[in-house]
Amino acid sequence: TAARFDTRPDATLAVTRGTLRLMRDMGLGCITEMPLNNGRRVDIIGFDKKGVATIVEVKSSLEDFTADSKWEEYLPYCDRFFFAVPMDFPVEVLPGSVGLILADAYGAAVERPAAEGTMNGSRRKALTLKFARLAAERLLRLAETV
Amino acid sequence: TAARFDTRPDATLAVTRGTLRLMRDMGLGCITEMPLNNGRRVDIIGFDKKGVATIVEVKSSLEDFTADSKWEEYLPYCDRFFFAVPMDFPVEVLPGSVGLILADAYGAAVERPAAEGTMNGSRRKALTLKFARLAAERLLRLAETV
Repeated sequence: TAARFDTRPDATLAVTRGTLRLMRDMGLGCITEMPLNNGRRVDIIGFDKKGVATIVEVKSSLEDFTADSKWEEYLPYCDRFFFAVPMDFPVEVLPGSVGLILADAYGAAVERPAAEGTMNGSRRKALTLKFARLAAERLLRLAETV
Repeated sequence: TAARFDTRPDATLAVTRGTLRLMRDMGLGCITEMPLNNGRRVDIIGFDKKGVATIVEVKSSLEDFTADSKWEEYLPYCDRFFFAVPMDFPVEVLPGSVGLILADAYGAAVERPAAEGTMNGSRRKALTLKFARLAAERLLRLAETV
């Protein structure tokens, strides 16, 4: 059961699910809704085997995108940044400088790759640790072993 | 449901569960059964907020302890090492140089603290990343969102 998503709109849930499938298939370990130190909360963040961090911001509609003017605050917290949107999203409004993923509930595709930035080393370390502890905490809670 | 533990002996399950409760209460994010690069698999590994790594090896009985002569191979992969055993375990056979946790299925207590070692920096980085990706992968699988 997808309890974490139950309160989110269907379109957001669908795009998130399809994007998670894509990212998992690309070898990234991913979690959703991770808070950052700057007060923002990322929709999806994943790490590949080398420790490269990808953040994906899910936008279910044009309205959802225009309501958020602060997406650039995510950039210092990752090496690669993508927007993930549904197939019918007017993608021409999205900034061309970052990556783009088109998704539905069953899968997703990288429409435009993300340029790889260079994250600050101590921030990468802190982010990896925060991700690790949050994923472990949620796993234990969900497994109900404790 | 504790599917991960279903095939393990009851005593091991009980000590693991009580120890996980203790570690969570101490602020550590923990997972079970993480493979290391040296071919060993740790019973419990947890990270605190500062990134200090604790490994706990669960020994359900004297027989379980004497069957394993290679526990020292865990030491380079953590800052603190503990054995966790049930209340009726003959603790005098355990090495006094490492930490000791006494546990039952409902809780646990640190009987002897673990001296804090200094893990190699690049190993810490690799271990944190491996933990992060493994926890995330298990969480997604368990949540069945993908």
